[in-house]
Amino acid sequence: MEQNMAYQSLREKLSDLQGLGKIDGLLYWDQATYLPAHAGESRGKVLATLAKLIQQKACDPELGQLLESLKGFEKNQGPDSEAASVIRVARREYERESRVSPALKAEMQSLFTEGYLLWTKSRPLEDFKALIPYLEKNLELTKRLADCQPGYEHPMDPLISRYDYGMSTQRIRKLFAELRQALVPLIQSISKKPSPDTSFLTEFYPEEQQLLFCKQVAKDMGYDFNRGRIDKTPHPFMVSVGGDDIRITTRVKERMLFECLSSTIHEVGHALYEQGIAKKFEDTPVFHGASAGVHESQSRLWENLVGRSLEFWQAYFPKLQSIFPEQLAGVSLESFYKAINKVEASLIRTDADEVTYNIHVMIRFELECQLLEGRLQVKDLADAWNESYQRDLGVTPKGPSQGVLQDVHWFGGPLGGSFQGYTVGNLLSAQFYAAALRSDPSIPAHIAQGNLQPMLAWLRKEVHASGAQYTADELVQKVCGGPLHIDSFVSYLTNKYQSIYQL
Amino acid sequence: MEQNMAYQSLREKLSDLQGLGKIDGLLYWDQATYLPAHAGESRGKVLATLAKLIQQKACDPELGQLLESLKGFEKNQGPDSEAASVIRVARREYERESRVSPALKAEMQSLFTEGYLLWTKSRPLEDFKALIPYLEKNLELTKRLADCQPGYEHPMDPLISRYDYGMSTQRIRKLFAELRQALVPLIQSISKKPSPDTSFLTEFYPEEQQLLFCKQVAKDMGYDFNRGRIDKTPHPFMVSVGGDDIRITTRVKERMLFECLSSTIHEVGHALYEQGIAKKFEDTPVFHGASAGVHESQSRLWENLVGRSLEFWQAYFPKLQSIFPEQLAGVSLESFYKAINKVEASLIRTDADEVTYNIHVMIRFELECQLLEGRLQVKDLADAWNESYQRDLGVTPKGPSQGVLQDVHWFGGPLGGSFQGYTVGNLLSAQFYAAALRSDPSIPAHIAQGNLQPMLAWLRKEVHASGAQYTADELVQKVCGGPLHIDSFVSYLTNKYQSIYQL
Repeated sequence: MEQNMAYQSLREKLSDLQGLGKIDGLLYWDQATYLPAHAGESRGKVLATLAKLIQQKACDPELGQLLESLKGFEKNQGPDSEAASVIRVARREYERESRVSPALKAEMQSLFTEGYLLWTKSRPLEDFKALIPYLEKNLELTKRLADCQPGYEHPMDPLISRYDYGMSTQRIRKLFAELRQALVPLIQSISKKPSPDTSFLTEFYPEEQQLLFCKQVAKDMGYDFNRGRIDKTPHPFMVSVGGDDIRITTRVKERMLFECLSSTIHEVGHALYEQGIAKKFEDTPVFHGASAGVHESQSRLWENLVGRSLEFWQAYFPKLQSIFPEQLAGVSLESFYKAINKVEASLIRTDADEVTYNIHVMIRFELECQLLEGRLQVKDLADAWNESYQRDLGVTPKGPSQGVLQDVHWFGGPLGGSFQGYTVGNLLSAQFYAAALRSDPSIPAHIAQGNLQPMLAWLRKEVHASGAQYTADELVQKVCGGPLHIDSFVSYLTNKYQSIYQL
Repeated sequence: MEQNMAYQSLREKLSDLQGLGKIDGLLYWDQATYLPAHAGESRGKVLATLAKLIQQKACDPELGQLLESLKGFEKNQGPDSEAASVIRVARREYERESRVSPALKAEMQSLFTEGYLLWTKSRPLEDFKALIPYLEKNLELTKRLADCQPGYEHPMDPLISRYDYGMSTQRIRKLFAELRQALVPLIQSISKKPSPDTSFLTEFYPEEQQLLFCKQVAKDMGYDFNRGRIDKTPHPFMVSVGGDDIRITTRVKERMLFECLSSTIHEVGHALYEQGIAKKFEDTPVFHGASAGVHESQSRLWENLVGRSLEFWQAYFPKLQSIFPEQLAGVSLESFYKAINKVEASLIRTDADEVTYNIHVMIRFELECQLLEGRLQVKDLADAWNESYQRDLGVTPKGPSQGVLQDVHWFGGPLGGSFQGYTVGNLLSAQFYAAALRSDPSIPAHIAQGNLQPMLAWLRKEVHASGAQYTADELVQKVCGGPLHIDSFVSYLTNKYQSIYQL
């Protein structure tokens, strides 16, 4: 009985903490969508106040005592029970957070605010040098952040663990080495083949019609507009503002037909995950994705394995063509399918195709590791970046805005830990899709008829419902009957692109 | 030096508390504008978490000790100083808030949530009886809320004080009695005259063009769109989400030309006040209006004394006519001016003209007093409402949705204290306008040329900049050289309507 009351107290504390997280989500969403132009500074103060409160609640010693006192209760409930899952995930997060001093968190927050502003100023000026002192400071704080967690093998390990709990640098490097061995020859054979015609993708496609089509696809995927919404932002994202408030954003380029579509399908993939977590976990730390990699597997499964499949376009190309009859006049399903799957070595990760994308991620991951190991100096980072791109993709940025300054990651967060999830997500997307097909081989045929529900139903049951109850490794083992590996992804790519490029 | 440090600690605590208030503002705005349909329940939990935090911070004993320890410092700084003003207002609010138990606040919050839901259900059913138990409970809690504040003359006094600090029931009743004596004969003489033609106001005015015109007027008034924004909601409001983030909402009815315009001008009036408070007060309780009445004086001054004036329409009617040439074909400036100033006894307060509006407020205020005094029973409230309307305005609601259930006030907040400010605002709007004209007699001539800046400049300097530094009484004394009275308002109305209705 006393234990039940302690568990109730725990749930209340966790609910408050999650509530602050939802508020943070709303502030983020608002900042990206509707914040007045000159309100940035006042918003900054509010965010700082909120961060302080979250820090206090996340590291509240009473929370630690409750978690300690509930160890027996947790054991009695059994590891798969709701209560034990909540306690286990809460303890893992409490331990991680309470090891980091409030002073370090505050120092990082203010550094990242400064870094973001500096980045927005220096990027258009192609001025990497101006960012060196900031990056050096970031590296120092990132190392201190890693040092808060005891007993790591590699300083990257605790950073990875913040996003992909259970992964390690050694394991990622091994996976990445295997993947590289498979991808490099594939990219090379593709590069020898003629490029598909993509000219019709850059006709003029009015925004309003693009958005209508994308919203219909989102609906068909199963996105619940009563429990979410879609707005426009320059950088699309998904954010949870509450269990029944999972919002996404998208972007539209009127001269790039596939931009809005792929962004929307990608973010809806993330959103379906969060909309599908079992309600019993709401207001607990279990009401999130299992890891960054698993989250990305959901967005990439929908974006690529479904949204760039021939089956999907068998159903949707006639619809798209009826909306844009002039722009797509004379374009066959086959040409369209080939165009949206064009593979080409390029400079910008977020614009990369599904084959070369992983090379971008590996380059970033390796640069982060070398910075943390002290084998690479910040001052040499831009050159090291360019050399890696030349070596691995045969392209060289014209300036840092196409290279080391291309995205905000390192200028608004720690210098490590957040990239491996993108490729882990790709690997898992193929593993999950293969497992889904083993369980329900009719999924592609349904997709070809525009029925996306069998796909969603499988994901809901196998992946979404449990939220963060299981670690990524546990989940993959349960769902796929084996560990994370590269084989499903490599064979998916090989089959698909052998056929497209007639390799 | 120690006192300076204590003052710095105070400012930090106040800044955190104001930060939570801004978050509350954003949650409110989001709920009214973009919240997904089924997200109400998850949002409710977030609001409850936030309310608990605000309660803790507002009544934090450390805040009380700091305020106590700063008494000498406050005296040394002098009452007009920034520091003394901040300490004074913070102490007033701390004392008020810390006298109310967290339990009572939580009880009220959950009652009001319930009341709001009941109201939305029972109003369309015309079912007042279903709300009687709720209203009885509200009355009980409202009395307990009043009882938290010591030594009042009338139980309404502490409730008034929450919105209009410094006012009392006795004083309001005296003002209202005088005003009634002046208004009743005016309304009677008007009612004997033929009504102006308003038919052209209900032509079809497309939403998009209405909004464009309204946004231009907002801009001309001086509303800074870089520090705010306008969205659409069924019930327009202004909300502060930060010193540089003062948002308003408006509504459009395509068959009621003046709806969007008057709502927009009204809310921009509120917003100009908040956008005009001196920056030094940001993140303190001084960064708000002086009182509900003073706030309303700003919205009503713009809405009525400016926005329904002949001068304003000398400038804007040609513009309006050029946007809606067919709908306003053959309508003269004079007919338009008369139409938007039509006086008519009616049932719904928020739709009332500026003459009869105050009768609605007086009825509500008096009903609240009688409930609190025990002279009126909740079960008799709907009948008492109807009798008052018949007696004072000669109209009787067909059902409670046109009467006692017409707005949400009593179903989402305490049963007293929030109505007097509407009429105090009307009185003050005329006093301030008169004072402005004494200081700058060219204001109406500028308005007639579409130049609203001299009006704003005077308000900025005399009313806006000081925020809540002075009480309403102090402010009126400073700005108008005398106390709050009815004379300016009565003579404004008399002059205006004598001319319009040729009395």
